[in-house]
Order: sequence, then C-alpha cells, then structure tokens
Amino acid sequence: MNQFLQACRAAIGAAHVLTETHDTAGYLTDQRGRFTGRAVAVLRPADSAEVAAIVKLCDRHRVPLVPQGGNTGLVLGSVPDRQGNAAVLSLKRLNRVRAVDPVNNTMTVEAGCILQHIQQEAAAAGRLFPLSLAAEGSCTIGGNLSTNAGGTGVLRYGNTRELCLGLEVVTAQGEVMSSLRGLRKDNTGYDLRDLFIGAEGTLGVITAAVLKLFPQPRAQVTALAALKTPAQALQLLNLAQSRCGPALTGFELMSDFCLQLVCKHFPDQRLPFAQRHAQYVLLELSDSESEEHARAMFEEVIGNALEQQLIDDAVIASSIAQSKALWQLRENISMAQAHEGKNIKHDISVPISRIAEFIEATDTLVQQASPACRMVTFGHLGDGNLHYNVSPPLGMADTDFIGQQHAINLVVHDSVDRFGGSISAEHGLGALKRDEITRYKSPVELKLMRTIKTALDPHNLMNPGKVI
Amino acid sequence: MNQFLQACRAAIGAAHVLTETHDTAGYLTDQRGRFTGRAVAVLRPADSAEVAAIVKLCDRHRVPLVPQGGNTGLVLGSVPDRQGNAAVLSLKRLNRVRAVDPVNNTMTVEAGCILQHIQQEAAAAGRLFPLSLAAEGSCTIGGNLSTNAGGTGVLRYGNTRELCLGLEVVTAQGEVMSSLRGLRKDNTGYDLRDLFIGAEGTLGVITAAVLKLFPQPRAQVTALAALKTPAQALQLLNLAQSRCGPALTGFELMSDFCLQLVCKHFPDQRLPFAQRHAQYVLLELSDSESEEHARAMFEEVIGNALEQQLIDDAVIASSIAQSKALWQLRENISMAQAHEGKNIKHDISVPISRIAEFIEATDTLVQQASPACRMVTFGHLGDGNLHYNVSPPLGMADTDFIGQQHAINLVVHDSVDRFGGSISAEHGLGALKRDEITRYKSPVELKLMRTIKTALDPHNLMNPGKVI
Repeated sequence: MNQFLQACRAAIGAAHVLTETHDTAGYLTDQRGRFTGRAVAVLRPADSAEVAAIVKLCDRHRVPLVPQGGNTGLVLGSVPDRQGNAAVLSLKRLNRVRAVDPVNNTMTVEAGCILQHIQQEAAAAGRLFPLSLAAEGSCTIGGNLSTNAGGTGVLRYGNTRELCLGLEVVTAQGEVMSSLRGLRKDNTGYDLRDLFIGAEGTLGVITAAVLKLFPQPRAQVTALAALKTPAQALQLLNLAQSRCGPALTGFELMSDFCLQLVCKHFPDQRLPFAQRHAQYVLLELSDSESEEHARAMFEEVIGNALEQQLIDDAVIASSIAQSKALWQLRENISMAQAHEGKNIKHDISVPISRIAEFIEATDTLVQQASPACRMVTFGHLGDGNLHYNVSPPLGMADTDFIGQQHAINLVVHDSVDRFGGSISAEHGLGALKRDEITRYKSPVELKLMRTIKTALDPHNLMNPGKVI
Repeated sequence: MNQFLQACRAAIGAAHVLTETHDTAGYLTDQRGRFTGRAVAVLRPADSAEVAAIVKLCDRHRVPLVPQGGNTGLVLGSVPDRQGNAAVLSLKRLNRVRAVDPVNNTMTVEAGCILQHIQQEAAAAGRLFPLSLAAEGSCTIGGNLSTNAGGTGVLRYGNTRELCLGLEVVTAQGEVMSSLRGLRKDNTGYDLRDLFIGAEGTLGVITAAVLKLFPQPRAQVTALAALKTPAQALQLLNLAQSRCGPALTGFELMSDFCLQLVCKHFPDQRLPFAQRHAQYVLLELSDSESEEHARAMFEEVIGNALEQQLIDDAVIASSIAQSKALWQLRENISMAQAHEGKNIKHDISVPISRIAEFIEATDTLVQQASPACRMVTFGHLGDGNLHYNVSPPLGMADTDFIGQQHAINLVVHDSVDRFGGSISAEHGLGALKRDEITRYKSPVELKLMRTIKTALDPHNLMNPGKVI
C-alpha cells in the first residue's frame, strides 16, 4: 500500500493525497450521516490526465476506487465501504468550464463543477441549463451524470441523461475516452455515453461532459391548485399538457399532510387558501412570449378545471416573491419531515396513469404493516415519480419505527413492482439498494449488467459493491 | 444446414422459412439497389418467443443472423453479405400494437409495426408520435430503434432514442429481456435500453418497445424564408428559438441549387418568390394554442429578421395545402437529385455553430477534388445535420463520377472530422461505413465497442460485419 501511495504522490502531488483522519473524514461519511466508511487515502487529481494516472495505479496495485463529486447522494454510492482497502477519488478539483457555445447551445464542463455554478454560467451566456435539484449548491455535474439525476425540470427537459451530448471518461484501464462532441445527431456505433451515465462510477470515471443549453424563457409563472384526489391531479395534468404543451415545466403533487408539516416547522409559511384541501398541485409555466401570455394560459386552464370540477380552488402567483413562496412549500417538505423526526423514504416511479391507484392500494398495505403511520406523499407527478415517505405514528419512538423499515420497504417496493414501477426513480442504487434490486429486476437484465461490468472492469475495482 | 432449417420449420412453421429464390429475393437487396447478398433462408417468426427460439437455434448451429425490418436502410445494415451462410430474420410479422395509454402518454408496439401505422394509432388516441421520416410508409419501428433514426422532428422531440422508454430484446443467447416499462424515471442500473438502440442488431434483436407520446399541437404553420448565406440561417435559427422556444419544430436549410433541381424534375412545383435567392430555410411552428397565435409568432420573427437584414424575403403558408407545398420542396430534393443522375451522399453532422464555416471550407476542398461538381446541400440545420451531397459536373458520365467517390468521401469526412463532427448523423454505419469509421473514432472508443460486442455476442452471430 505504501508503494501505491508513493506512486500517487508522484502522480498528483503529495498535497493531494490525503491520509490523515482530519483531512479525510469529510469524504468518508454520506450526507445524511447514516454510514461512515474507511479508505487508504483520498486522492484529489487536478485534471483528467491525473485521473487516468490514478486509475492506472489502482489497476496495477489492485486498489478499489470510489469516485466522489459533491457527496450529496442518498443511496451510499459515493462513500467507501468499511474494509478500508479502497481509495476515494475526489473529482472536485476538475472544476473548469472548458467552453460555452451559445450558438450550438452547448457547454463543456469538467466533472467537479458545482451544478449551481453551471446554471449561472449558462445564464451569463443568455441560456438555460435546466437541471435543478435540492442539492444544486453543492452537488457536482459528474455526480449528476453518474446517477442520472432527476429534479424538478424533468417534465419538460428530461433527466440528466437527456441533457448530455458527449462525455470524457477514464476507463477502468486508465485510458481517456474523449467523446466531447457537441452533436445532436451521431449514429456511429454503440451508445457508450449512456452506458457511463447512470452507472454510478462502476464502469469508469466521468471527467468532463458536453451539456445541452436552451433558450431562456421570458417568463415563469407558478400556480397552486387545491383538489381532492390524486386521480383529479392526473386529469388536471392532462388538461394542462393539452393546453400548454411544453410550456408546462412543473407539476408537483403534495398531500395535505405534507403541507401541514411545512407550516408546522416553518411558521412563516402559510397556505394561500381559506380552508384545507386533501391534495395540492404546484404548476409552473415557462413562456417564451411574456408573463401576460403565461398568466392567460393559466387562467384558461384553471377556469376549465374549475368548470370540470377537477379542482376546488387555485391561486396564480402575482409576483416573483409569491412564486418563490409557493415553491418553498414544495421544497421545504423534506426538511419539515426531518424536523418531525425519523422517516422511511421511498423514491419510486410508476406509469403516470396508475399513480392514483398505486397510492390508494399501497396506503392500505402500509397501514396494515404499520397501523397509524403517517404518509408523506409528494413528488413529480408529471414524471410518475413520487417521494412516497412514511413517518411514524404519533408517539412512537424513532428506533421502534426504524425497526419496521425493512418490512415497510418490502410492502412499498413489492407494490411498486406490481404496478410496473421502479424502486429507484431518481436516486440510483448505490450500496443501499444493490441487493434489493435483485428481487425486482429480471435475471436476464441482471445477467446483462454483470456481463457488461465484468467486460469493462474485469478486476472489479471501479466503485465495487455499488449498483451490481 | 438442413438440420438447422428443419429445426426452424419446427419452431415457426414451414410456411415461414423461405428458401426459394422467388420468395427470398426481396429480402436480399438493399432499398437503393446497390447490393445483393445471399442467405440460407429468410425466417419470419410471429412473436418474440419465436424470435428467441430462432436465435437459440442460430446459436446452437452457429448460423449468423441478419435482423430486418422494412429494409429501408441506407447503409447496408439489414441485408446479408455474399457468403450465403447467414439467415435473414424478418420482424415484419411482429406487427401488433400491444397497448396505448393516453394518460401515461405511452404506446407499446412490436418491432415490425410500420412507422406510419404507429403515427395513425397515436393520432386515433388524440396523441402525437413525432418520429417522421421519408420512409415512414414502409420502415418499421424496430429498424428505427436499431438505427436510432432521426428525421424532421428531432429539433423538438429528439432522435428515436429519446422517444423510447422501454424495450423487449432477444439477446444473442436467445433469452427474452422484457423491460417494457413505461417509466419517465428509472435509475436502477445500467442503461441497457440505449445500448440496444442504435446497435443495428449487432447485440441482440429488438422485438417490442414502449414509445413516448405527446399532446397533439392545435396548429402547425409553415414558412419559407429566403436569405443569402448559411451564416444568416444560423442567426435566424437563434432568433426563432429565442422567440418560439419549443414551438419551433422544424428548421430545414436548402441551397438554391437544391430547389432548382426540384423545380426542374417536378414542374408542378414552384418557388413562392419573385426572384431567386442563394439559400432558403423552411420553418415549422407547432402551437398548443391556435393557428392565429402561431401565425402571429411567425410574423414577429420574420419582421425582426427582415429588420435585422438576416433574410431578404419570406412567406407564411396561408393554408394546409400551401404548407404541404412548401414541405414538398424539401421532401422532393432527394428524388430530384436521383432523377438528375448518380450522386455521392454524405449524411453528416457538425456543431451547429460551425455549420456555415464547415460548408464554406468543405465546398472549396470538394471543388479542388472534383472541379465543377455540383453541391446539393440541404438538411436539418437545427440539428447540425446536413445531407451534403455532390452531383457530377454537367456532362460527366455517371461511371466516371462514381469513380471519384472514395476520394470525395475522404475529403468530406476528413473535413467533418476537423470540425468535430460525425460521418453518420442519422443513417448508422451498417456495412457501408464500418471500415471507414475506424479512421475517425478513437482507439479507446473502438476498443470499448469491441469489448461490449464480444461480451454480449461472443460467437459474433448477431448481424456480423455491421457497425464493428
């Protein structure tokens, strides 16, 4: 191991080979503080050539490598296990924006760039980079790509996968694959790009990417609708999409209990309705014409929805401040739930047409498994993606509730499977769901995944113990 | 071989194992009539189970298999070579629409469904399936997926890859991978879907797919702008995208010579301008509001473009018939060029920002290589994809000109490479560009492709001699 560390110091400079506990601690624990692993070192190369040098050394010395960006993942994908024989590869020093091309609507960035920084650079060039998620102030684009991150813009712009045109990757053999092409169309062989995207660092290390940019909308307007059931929310989605087409950029469902929790733990926030309703939908329109035009579209949609009795009430934000306040209701749900105590999270998706039925059937099963537990159901309805979370019954101790976690996960995920859904819609598998997925993915799919893993990383050194 | 054929007859019925020349001829020659291969048989299974049975037999008897849909490809990807030891696997009997789900905006179809039939089924459900290309009346969705087909809707809706949520695939071992999930988000492992999409049948056989549907636009309006240079066309693209956002669904560049050829060979067609211009752009808007609204957007864009002297003239179609007439100018270019005589085609892409510079530089080089040859340059400018075709100098015999093909290809494709482009934007590699791509793709990319091919198809039986 000393030989390996010596060679790493020679390759990237001694200052960037961290081995002291006070230097490495921040890299070894996941963001939610659930797991702390061990590592022989944290390595901080400066560029893709140094990443390649490190990977070659890992290959030669058979040292497992755990790539890490902002370490904001939720499935233990970016921290090492407890064996202590792996090295963490931090990509954070690869943080240059290599190029912005507003005419091609592309931007070439290194893996360690912070998502928010990329959004700002795009805006400075008069363009939109639409990926947006809670961790955007600290997550990196390399991590977003490796986990195919979702977020709130998927309805219109797709997942991170759809926002990437080309990649630079260091393979498990330490070779640099430079496919940083800014092309909308390129049918010259296998789609290597999408194989590395979402692979969570188990097939190679993404070091840079060409991202898609979009024209900035001239106006964004937000509305909140109050209604009775998820089934009505689905009908509202259909109505809004027919009328607004791609201008509908957000459609978030929140149950009454979610917003009760927000109002309890964030006393400054309040609902804009005189009375309570069972469900709420946050809608966002992005308009290339004008605010008046967006507002007129909203008024038409809401008017029709009231007429068809799909919704009981609605408000359209009349200012940017009001828009932000509405979005905060949505964004504070996770935090409010954390303030309320421990909870069991499920990041699931089902076909959009089956969401209402799924919620009803699964709520019943979860209540049977854990009577009086409280359902915190919200999410990206327009993508079929729910954060189907469960808080303990009032008065139950956190530890007792967490003891039920395995049983509740099984009930929820088995139900997801019956509805043709996914047990990880946007967070990935990491170490957390690696075993669980074998219950739901077909043997043929698992075999193909293993064949690919073995072919590209025969010594199983790239983020071992994750995904597969 | 007799044993193999006997087993095939037992598996799918003797009527669907074609061996007589008059039965097989239509499957052995490519659409443009450039190449005729040989086969031991043409096999026509009825469903994915029968496809799996055939693939298992091929694996056991080591018979190479050439999957074929509508056989409309342009790169010799769906016809066998001349050795005569391969079987053609026609997917045309797998032609059922298995399900349409308008609320989930998805449709599950078998590989042999004709594209136009899928468009019609989507429309019958009040939805849009936006893939559209010249061969839509006879190409199949399995072929579209296997080649990641492009077409005229890419600017707004992406390539076929972006229109697919899930696949059913028969692997090279004859196992059925059933991943027909209609999910917008599913981050549970490697992206097997995108590995099979665009692989041209060399990794497995696509037998069914879940496709994305979209709300139907309320109005589509077409305009034709006349201008001087491709550089101005780029500026017009930027202007139109800023103003219209995703409502801009078509942006096609055509040089004056292209439209001269159309008017010569289709005397009924005429240009709607009093005088000739060097370049033309066909624009299409798809509006979720109304025809008046689309028309008003066009008027604003055209007004601004005239003011900024980006364009010299423009017409907006005032009826569906006029819209169709404008589109026919674009659609008839290939046919007009064929009527004019032999020509050398290049299906290339470069970054959109470099198109003008690419055309200028490459025109010069091509004229040096083949003085007085005539450039037939048109294509999907909004995607950076040009059909950069070359017709012989007036008076030169076709055979003399075709003798220059290799030299001209080299000049054009080397130039594409210098501009960071692709030598096959939307047609694929097939057998035609399989060797050529090794000049332009990096050794690391080629090695990764070969590693994947060998891992998934170790006996090289799936469409051998294509892609890699």
